[in-house]
Amino acid sequence: MFKGVATAIITPFDENYEVDYKALEEFALFQMNYVDGLVVLGTTGEAPTIDENEREKIVSKVVELVNKKIPVIVGTGSNNPKHVLYNNKLAEKSGADGLLIVSPYYNKSTQKGLVEYFSYVAQRTELPIILYNVPSRTGGNILTDTAIEIFEKNKNVIGIKEASGNISQIAELISKKPEDMFVYSGNDDQALPLMALGGDGVISVFSNVLPKQMKELTEAILTNDYNKAQEINKKYNSLMRKLFVEVNPIPVKYAVSKLGYCKNILRLPLISISENGKTVIDNSFEELNIL
Amino acid sequence: MFKGVATAIITPFDENYEVDYKALEEFALFQMNYVDGLVVLGTTGEAPTIDENEREKIVSKVVELVNKKIPVIVGTGSNNPKHVLYNNKLAEKSGADGLLIVSPYYNKSTQKGLVEYFSYVAQRTELPIILYNVPSRTGGNILTDTAIEIFEKNKNVIGIKEASGNISQIAELISKKPEDMFVYSGNDDQALPLMALGGDGVISVFSNVLPKQMKELTEAILTNDYNKAQEINKKYNSLMRKLFVEVNPIPVKYAVSKLGYCKNILRLPLISISENGKTVIDNSFEELNIL
Amino acid sequence: MFKGVATAIITPFDENYEVDYKALEEFALFQMNYVDGLVVLGTTGEAPTIDENEREKIVSKVVELVNKKIPVIVGTGSNNPKHVLYNNKLAEKSGADGLLIVSPYYNKSTQKGLVEYFSYVAQRTELPIILYNVPSRTGGNILTDTAIEIFEKNKNVIGIKEASGNISQIAELISKKPEDMFVYSGNDDQALPLMALGGDGVISVFSNVLPKQMKELTEAILTNDYNKAQEINKKYNSLMRKLFVEVNPIPVKYAVSKLGYCKNILRLPLISISENGKTVIDNSFEELNIL
Amino acid sequence: MFKGVATAIITPFDENYEVDYKALEEFALFQMNYVDGLVVLGTTGEAPTIDENEREKIVSKVVELVNKKIPVIVGTGSNNPKHVLYNNKLAEKSGADGLLIVSPYYNKSTQKGLVEYFSYVAQRTELPIILYNVPSRTGGNILTDTAIEIFEKNKNVIGIKEASGNISQIAELISKKPEDMFVYSGNDDQALPLMALGGDGVISVFSNVLPKQMKELTEAILTNDYNKAQEINKKYNSLMRKLFVEVNPIPVKYAVSKLGYCKNILRLPLISISENGKTVIDNSFEELNIL
Repeated sequence: MFKGVATAIITPFDENYEVDYKALEEFALFQMNYVDGLVVLGTTGEAPTIDENEREKIVSKVVELVNKKIPVIVGTGSNNPKHVLYNNKLAEKSGADGLLIVSPYYNKSTQKGLVEYFSYVAQRTELPIILYNVPSRTGGNILTDTAIEIFEKNKNVIGIKEASGNISQIAELISKKPEDMFVYSGNDDQALPLMALGGDGVISVFSNVLPKQMKELTEAILTNDYNKAQEINKKYNSLMRKLFVEVNPIPVKYAVSKLGYCKNILRLPLISISENGKTVIDNSFEELNIL
Repeated sequence: MFKGVATAIITPFDENYEVDYKALEEFALFQMNYVDGLVVLGTTGEAPTIDENEREKIVSKVVELVNKKIPVIVGTGSNNPKHVLYNNKLAEKSGADGLLIVSPYYNKSTQKGLVEYFSYVAQRTELPIILYNVPSRTGGNILTDTAIEIFEKNKNVIGIKEASGNISQIAELISKKPEDMFVYSGNDDQALPLMALGGDGVISVFSNVLPKQMKELTEAILTNDYNKAQEINKKYNSLMRKLFVEVNPIPVKYAVSKLGYCKNILRLPLISISENGKTVIDNSFEELNIL
Repeated sequence: MFKGVATAIITPFDENYEVDYKALEEFALFQMNYVDGLVVLGTTGEAPTIDENEREKIVSKVVELVNKKIPVIVGTGSNNPKHVLYNNKLAEKSGADGLLIVSPYYNKSTQKGLVEYFSYVAQRTELPIILYNVPSRTGGNILTDTAIEIFEKNKNVIGIKEASGNISQIAELISKKPEDMFVYSGNDDQALPLMALGGDGVISVFSNVLPKQMKELTEAILTNDYNKAQEINKKYNSLMRKLFVEVNPIPVKYAVSKLGYCKNILRLPLISISENGKTVIDNSFEELNIL
Repeated sequence: MFKGVATAIITPFDENYEVDYKALEEFALFQMNYVDGLVVLGTTGEAPTIDENEREKIVSKVVELVNKKIPVIVGTGSNNPKHVLYNNKLAEKSGADGLLIVSPYYNKSTQKGLVEYFSYVAQRTELPIILYNVPSRTGGNILTDTAIEIFEKNKNVIGIKEASGNISQIAELISKKPEDMFVYSGNDDQALPLMALGGDGVISVFSNVLPKQMKELTEAILTNDYNKAQEINKKYNSLMRKLFVEVNPIPVKYAVSKLGYCKNILRLPLISISENGKTVIDNSFEELNIL
């Protein structure tokens, strides 16, 4: 699908908690200058609180704007397969290039159930699918052999976004997987180690703020310039971590609002960042001479 | 709301994966003979894959059937407050007695965000609300002080179903909480220790299978007959644990199907129990002379 | 061995970091007035940094003083069986009544290895042995079936101190174990729920500070007066938790020093409590009108 | 101290559970052909059950044999500072080149206590010290800022062996640490990602079996040949993981015994590998054409 960095973009809201499409477009244009793909309506895009009409409009606008210069991938996961199928149809209709589908959260399933579930979903769309493993949010883990089985049984499943945080599991996956299965990091501070193991890139929160720098990092890795990659990574590791000082996307929305691309407004159950959290981000911006 | 045991009932499906309302009614009638409350459309009832029409019909039928003899509590939680409000309206309209609302899963929030979220929801319904804390599914924890703050700020929040599995957290909560805040166990094998600390009862999976025995257990505790309570608890601890040998409600659905009250059919992402799992439940039934 | 509460007593040191035997004796005398047993040289007694000569002298003095009024149990665990055997011989020679033996920490073992290890040790002493399971310190877990197998294979293994913190594991153990196997809580705030399940008592840190109150709690439970037990437990739960605000025995040593029974001095790697920690304990003492 | 791979060598025993010095020498000679350093009496060397006389003899023999061609580092950690000082004196006397000192296990400490403890120890030896962080065994974590503080306060503390398994913590450490602080992986399957972040090498269990291959892996990384490094890493990831199918060093001792360098004998609390474990290792040897 892509090699390098795709930004999991935030969804801008206005003071009435409505989607701010104008801000979205400007932000997407800003991002397009730097990164290799856009993920809309991921967790960072507050997908769970976006309704169907908004979903269609958001995807359509971004797809039109991007105009096939980089892939647009839509987060369509849910814990109800019917909703996933519906979201997938919307994505197809809107011209999206791919789907990011998280394992069913809250109701969960067994490993065998995950194979059946993802196969059921994959057989009902033509679009390429990236699985998404994030146990700290879903309460479940897509084990290595399960991920590979889903990949092998479904030709439009092309890879996985790994956010287990468990580098041993990731090393196992990369060692066992077929060569053409993509593995992306779901954690910014683990992009370098995951790619060093043979992974393909990162679906990034950090690049909402500094897309150019995240692109430079992945570019350095992909061209085997590890000295440069280490230098970039050391410089920005602190901000990568601080963007998770509160539940994502609370801090990144504040950070992007500081850049002027959105207002610092989130929909419940998320709320805007605490004063302490602000100070953490403000200090990091100052240290890095951002703004 | 209640003292003792409320069953978080399974939702029966037919071979076409449609809700089997007749089976549901028979099962609810069976349960009513024994327990102190019914929770419909909890996780055990596969709520995430029940659509709005089914939801309304399920609640209405159970409410009508129960006819106010015991409270009917409806699981209405989601990770989108709009859906929660909608579900709550349906529950009110259908004559439900209370709501069970889980903390937002997957998107999660901060502790302060949880207070704002639950207050927002509570202010928009008259029905009594039981909070539901189940970090292994939601990825988040409702900390003690947060639970108490939500209770104190909202007069229709009446208590919490605690399924953190952390008995130290539960002991802290029971020590700090106002006297009239209800605390229910969300784990069958922890009902006795939680109630011994001063809790009020259990919202039970196990009682789908053996409602009479679970009622005897809570009755023994509530009447301070701990010798009897320990005896019952020791006898059934094994089955309580085995009902979680695979992701709930996979094993309990099989167990209830053995009793003849439903078919062993689940909706994706859940699937029916493995052969190994069947053997575990079969052996437990044999040991306990169930059937 | 005992029913109720045994205090895992601190070891007093003087300004030269030498054992303060006089303080030890006064403290043991104070404790004897209230509790059902004394555990010397447990983790709370800083056993790892007590040398062999001190060990012999400490045990002998306490044994002599207690004069068989209550059992004196000696912590003799290590990660080297030779040291355990040596410590056990010292305990026998000094007239101790029982041994508390932790599973091998740091080097750890398999479940089968634990059975072989504890059997090897048990066969080489006549003294009764209480196993000690504390995964947060040892890095390993004595699983239920392992604990029972060790108990059944060794007639002088009489029970287990459970500090896994996992009440479901404890409920399983109490349900499966032979009737005459003792189960003690290793966590003060879990004494009530563990005993409610059918356990026998607690090996307590809290009772270093308030032995009378801990005795009243266990007495209430053992006489089935759960109303009183809950009242006591709610009152003291806060201090029970605060004694673990830093690594045990740092806070309890400060608390006992406030009572005047020892100096606030610990041996490396432990250090005396931070200023923040002091404030936490001071406030708790004030709230409870201790002193 | 070194860049690349140091083997944490096993300690061979004979049928009477005595140290087999002849086997030790042959094994050390074998290892010297390939690796950049030897760690004797680490956890893999069953240090906790080696007595003082054995310790002196083991270190002396290996030091003599190695004859300064590569550094010999001795594991001297304990949970009693007196034992650490004693072990350090023995190591100095025996001509060792460095010390590997684990954070105090079982009794544990606070972060401030760790700084005081390691400073106390470091000030009492001239030998260079590598800290060792392995929370799954010690029950404690040396946090990033603590590790750096210890390094900065003690000029003979030269680095850390990181076996937290938490690659985010490791990335943070490498980003924040002074340039001349060494960071070694304590997990074979995390050597590549840790070194890609800027770490210096690995203290390896795997290289007991395949020292040449582990050296090739680290050499490829240190010369920025990541294609080759990934290839080697993918090939051997499976065996790296399988050497931990039971508690280390149980499987590696069996594997080395298959190579003929030692007998498959361990001291309690460790026991020799189960039949299942044997099959796992046997199959891996066959797949990789070892032997």
